[in-house]
Amino acid sequence: MKTVILIGAMGKMGQAALTGLGNHKVITASRSGKDVDYKVDITDEGSIRNLYEQVGHFDAVVNTVGQCEYANFTEMTEAQWMSTVMSKMMGQINLVRIGQDFIAESGSFTLISGILNVKPIPYAIADATTSGAIDTFVKCVAYEMPKKLRINVVNPTVLVEAWDVYGEMMPGFEPVQGTLVGKAFERSVDGFLTGEVIYVDA
Amino acid sequence: MKTVILIGAMGKMGQAALTGLGNHKVITASRSGKDVDYKVDITDEGSIRNLYEQVGHFDAVVNTVGQCEYANFTEMTEAQWMSTVMSKMMGQINLVRIGQDFIAESGSFTLISGILNVKPIPYAIADATTSGAIDTFVKCVAYEMPKKLRINVVNPTVLVEAWDVYGEMMPGFEPVQGTLVGKAFERSVDGFLTGEVIYVDA
Repeated sequence: MKTVILIGAMGKMGQAALTGLGNHKVITASRSGKDVDYKVDITDEGSIRNLYEQVGHFDAVVNTVGQCEYANFTEMTEAQWMSTVMSKMMGQINLVRIGQDFIAESGSFTLISGILNVKPIPYAIADATTSGAIDTFVKCVAYEMPKKLRINVVNPTVLVEAWDVYGEMMPGFEPVQGTLVGKAFERSVDGFLTGEVIYVDA
Repeated sequence: MKTVILIGAMGKMGQAALTGLGNHKVITASRSGKDVDYKVDITDEGSIRNLYEQVGHFDAVVNTVGQCEYANFTEMTEAQWMSTVMSKMMGQINLVRIGQDFIAESGSFTLISGILNVKPIPYAIADATTSGAIDTFVKCVAYEMPKKLRINVVNPTVLVEAWDVYGEMMPGFEPVQGTLVGKAFERSVDGFLTGEVIYVDA
């Protein structure tokens, strides 16, 4: 049994990840702090550091959050770009950058991207671009992780559980069950994979 | 003959691009402004806007710059990450975001990434990550460019002309002649390609 920090635990993706973490002690965190063990804002370095210090010993970090702004490229502002970059991209990189000092030897990080970087749709350019950055980051940084740490990213399509929210903007996409995405997180946390983009698509 | 703005014209990559732009009127720009037509800092929105306003009519933008910080991931600071993100990634996105209003109909943008996102080496994690972001950005944004604009990115390996600087950190890489990279820029500016990552590797 590992101690796993699950960030965004109450969200739909967090709940999906949770279905794959049944063998572990899961410590939950989210931005609001509501109904979870800890509050954390991944865009704030101090908040990340505070989370890790409070938890103490842990073997894995599973992140399921990254705020993205959605707009046509012609209309997307610098501020919208930057809020996406600082959350979905730099927020996740900072979870790893800061976390490498706190996590146990042979631990793992599992990040989240999203299928829109390989299946583009309108309004999602900032989401796609930062997903591309995270997928690349994971593939490249795996070679230089210290302490025998592993790192992977789950790149899922839309969830069945979120289809009512996103379905209208994703014609021709087939949603997948959250439990299938949970298995991707399980493969990352429990397996020996590293440097992998684990696609979950239908 | 098109009017092409070449950013980073005096650098080794700029000189390589220039070899492919012989059929065009080339307007040169760089951060220092030395020996070029205009001064521009791609990390500064006002400076980008100023460049486009001063040039007036143009059909293509070719960017060959993006400052990256090089360090091991374990040692790279938030400041080093952000200076790379704001130049190589957001600087280039802003060249397109702001430029779409100024560039002539049916014009083109050609950005620069670099082969280290598909051939990782030590010290280059920020370079690789932002190259991955730009390659993804170009592939996805091409579908929504206004005014029949095209966009591509040249993703080259190291140049023969820069081998004395970078060769030592790139064992097992085969450098390519700048003129070959120039042809990639030529294919982007003169062809009908859009949404392409034009690799130049050996």
